Amino acid sequence: MAEIYDFAKNLVHEHAQVIPISLFVAVLCICLVIGHLLEENRWLNESITAIFIGFLTGTIILVVSKGKSSHILTFNEELFFIYLLPPIIFNAGFQVKKKQFFQNFLTIMLFGVIGVFVSTIIITTGAWLLFPKLGIAGLNARDYLAVGTIFSSTDTVCTLQVLHQDETPLLYSLVFGEGVVNDATSVVLFNAVQKIDVNKLNGRIGLHVIGDFLYLFSTSTALGVAFGLVTAYSLKTLCFGRHSSVREISLTVLMAYLSYMVAELLELSGILTVFFCGILMSHYAWHNVTESSRITTRHVFAMMSFIAETFIFLNVGMDALDIEKWRLTKLSFGASMGIYSMTLLLILLGRAAFVFPLSAFSNYMNRRAAGRCSLSIKQQVIIWWAGLMRGAVSIALAFKQFTNSGVTLDPINAMLITNTIIVVLFSTVVFGFLTKPLINYLLPHDGTNPISRKESKDVGEDLNLPLLSFDETAATNINRAKDNLSMLMESPVYTIHFYWRRFDDAYMRPLFGGPVSNQSTC
Amino acid sequence: MAEIYDFAKNLVHEHAQVIPISLFVAVLCICLVIGHLLEENRWLNESITAIFIGFLTGTIILVVSKGKSSHILTFNEELFFIYLLPPIIFNAGFQVKKKQFFQNFLTIMLFGVIGVFVSTIIITTGAWLLFPKLGIAGLNARDYLAVGTIFSSTDTVCTLQVLHQDETPLLYSLVFGEGVVNDATSVVLFNAVQKIDVNKLNGRIGLHVIGDFLYLFSTSTALGVAFGLVTAYSLKTLCFGRHSSVREISLTVLMAYLSYMVAELLELSGILTVFFCGILMSHYAWHNVTESSRITTRHVFAMMSFIAETFIFLNVGMDALDIEKWRLTKLSFGASMGIYSMTLLLILLGRAAFVFPLSAFSNYMNRRAAGRCSLSIKQQVIIWWAGLMRGAVSIALAFKQFTNSGVTLDPINAMLITNTIIVVLFSTVVFGFLTKPLINYLLPHDGTNPISRKESKDVGEDLNLPLLSFDETAATNINRAKDNLSMLMESPVYTIHFYWRRFDDAYMRPLFGGPVSNQSTC
Repeated sequence: MAEIYDFAKNLVHEHAQVIPISLFVAVLCICLVIGHLLEENRWLNESITAIFIGFLTGTIILVVSKGKSSHILTFNEELFFIYLLPPIIFNAGFQVKKKQFFQNFLTIMLFGVIGVFVSTIIITTGAWLLFPKLGIAGLNARDYLAVGTIFSSTDTVCTLQVLHQDETPLLYSLVFGEGVVNDATSVVLFNAVQKIDVNKLNGRIGLHVIGDFLYLFSTSTALGVAFGLVTAYSLKTLCFGRHSSVREISLTVLMAYLSYMVAELLELSGILTVFFCGILMSHYAWHNVTESSRITTRHVFAMMSFIAETFIFLNVGMDALDIEKWRLTKLSFGASMGIYSMTLLLILLGRAAFVFPLSAFSNYMNRRAAGRCSLSIKQQVIIWWAGLMRGAVSIALAFKQFTNSGVTLDPINAMLITNTIIVVLFSTVVFGFLTKPLINYLLPHDGTNPISRKESKDVGEDLNLPLLSFDETAATNINRAKDNLSMLMESPVYTIHFYWRRFDDAYMRPLFGGPVSNQSTC
Repeated sequence: MAEIYDFAKNLVHEHAQVIPISLFVAVLCICLVIGHLLEENRWLNESITAIFIGFLTGTIILVVSKGKSSHILTFNEELFFIYLLPPIIFNAGFQVKKKQFFQNFLTIMLFGVIGVFVSTIIITTGAWLLFPKLGIAGLNARDYLAVGTIFSSTDTVCTLQVLHQDETPLLYSLVFGEGVVNDATSVVLFNAVQKIDVNKLNGRIGLHVIGDFLYLFSTSTALGVAFGLVTAYSLKTLCFGRHSSVREISLTVLMAYLSYMVAELLELSGILTVFFCGILMSHYAWHNVTESSRITTRHVFAMMSFIAETFIFLNVGMDALDIEKWRLTKLSFGASMGIYSMTLLLILLGRAAFVFPLSAFSNYMNRRAAGRCSLSIKQQVIIWWAGLMRGAVSIALAFKQFTNSGVTLDPINAMLITNTIIVVLFSTVVFGFLTKPLINYLLPHDGTNPISRKESKDVGEDLNLPLLSFDETAATNINRAKDNLSMLMESPVYTIHFYWRRFDDAYMRPLFGGPVSNQSTC
């Protein structure tokens, strides 16, 4: 017996890293197989499965370690922001259907940017008014603002597993696009909030936050675009594929990662940068590589994103058993339940407060685009529901704000962490559980759905305005310019999109690569 | 100025992980592009380029940090053995041409196993006799044995970049196979040596080491085979591809990594396990996945291996500037040079001592296999030369033996580390540099090379012995058994290979997947 114990002790000592990694990889494999077996299930989805398996594993570890720990690896926000988030966001940019995304760009930005601001304000105000009544004291203005941003970050993975890109392209691109922009906005806003001097909170500070935000948004986007273009250009001119596709693939992966890291280094938003880098890479760089590299890159990014996501949800499940933080929390059962349900209520409210007004606004903006359908009330409900889940970004931000490398000794901070974990668990499991039935109820997909038919009609293609030309008389050109201008006023998004495509075909694709330029230079 | 300094200090503090990772990724990208541009170069190859770039980067860091450090990341053998080595070895197993490998199995094992033993004995004895004369004292028997194994591990990357699998298949498979088996043997032997009780060094201990070695070798192989078969079987029965190829790819990658980790956990040789897991996966599992998963897995493994290799060589270049260890070494310039040249001489001798005798033995064993060419003296010289380079395994083992997480305060240990680094640098750069001209001189490949012609003739296919059958008379079966037995005596390797293929087609492939069973169960 003593020998076995010695052996085990020796094992733990000599393989400090090997044991947790092996365990985690094994659990990931189990998750993957079970997720596959439950694929056809009406209720469950991948995220919920991963959370449950994480919870189970956590319980086992808790029992084996005699209540000491429930984690295989200590979760810290560095691991999350440096290794797990970049592949997920890059893959989102890489796989997004760009035409859909840019045609709905205005609506996506409304939801993803204005929405987060509205939701943050509502949740912050609500928490500020209601938390003290439940016995929570000692939070300053920055903490309340942090709570607001933490619970404004959505997780759309569950919904996207149910919606189908081909059946309901408009809804899919809206939910998907909002999810990504929302992630970036909430992280950027969170960082902006952390820099606020809370003693001088006034209107000017508010403007300052918005200014900071706009600066971060534009510079991060520009950096991502620059990285994408540089990669596309070097792949096009250097013709790596001549010798080996391995170099092409490696370069794409490394440059994608580098874009995120450089953005973080420059204190910009890595999420936005890597997202736009992904879009640019799939638009240009992807066309400059060999056929097998195309297949590989697409699958590699999907795989890395998939593994990172599963990893995160497993960890969320284990976090639920973070015994130390539960012990620290000194609230009564009733008060805890009050906090949880209040937070969930604020989330529901905060989201409703922008989804329905902004949908109406978006419908108003799109009113003149003939043949373009507006968002029906059913679709608005789905969009509202799709963003109710809270996920890994919330947890990572909460750890960043309220712990020091995952450790806290303050009861209030411990309570805010457990609150975040419970809200994430509840929203993902319960709301996520109801997503499939809700969507099936609101949008019964029998293949003859008039909404999806209307949506798939491509209006952008009908626009056929020529650019100004020097071959014709000035009068013709002036008339044409007038036409263009009135077009721009009537349906701005389509006109911009149209001119962008002309520009793209004429200048960008020949330089950076794309389906138009069929002549290969290699 | 002070502000810039504050900014820099703040940056370093807040992004303790971001800066080194960004730098490393950027340097990797540069390496990749330069490696591609130098592809057609007569002299240089990828490894040498990476070492030079690592050296340059190290110099820059040394200047910027004012002589404090030359490393971006601190190299430790855990990083190497846990993250970098597994993908390289797995990829080796996954991409190896199995028919070639198994047809030359006996010769490969002779070189890879017996060769390491011979080389270790010679280098250990040489060091034991000569090191004290150059003023190095204080080493015990275990240290000398460690030096022997450290310098018996070869690095065949340089040679494999020059040899062509299609032009000289026999040479390629011998050099490649020896490289992999050698890596595994030297690590296993190194670990076995570390457990020896040096006070009781006698013949029985020697036998004990050999026994340990055989046990490790067989169990590790069995574990790798088991992992490969389990993966193949689950991919075949679960039909992941029905829903998404991402799951298939993820499972393959995770299981490959898991096999290595479990082997390490059980104190077996992870290298051997993951190598055989790779062979089994490419032989069975690879056939059970969708077409795009096949392309992806092949490229993913090649990419990971490529990045890991470049990473290692970059680090070797930076190691050369490990100022602290240089300062600790108190030997005179002459004595240092003496040590370096002696070690190189012992390596040359130790390798010659087994390549030529074992080649003769292998030729003798293959004498009866009609049409089978023997190893000419030119080929033997190439095999000898191919294994002269020392690489990352040597450095990792040296760090493991003579430092404590990369740090040592003992002058002798520091000297042994710098000695290893110099030998690796010199052998890779100088011997590697001469490899291309040497091979071009010895084997001018004009496309009509009689050796390569002869080699490509596939003798194994000509064997056409049927298995015993119950349909025929006992006499026929007895005669056939006699035939088979004499066949086995005359050319054992081919006969075993032949029966293995019959067994594989009849039982293994239908169960675990492979090109024979065309009927898909999905």
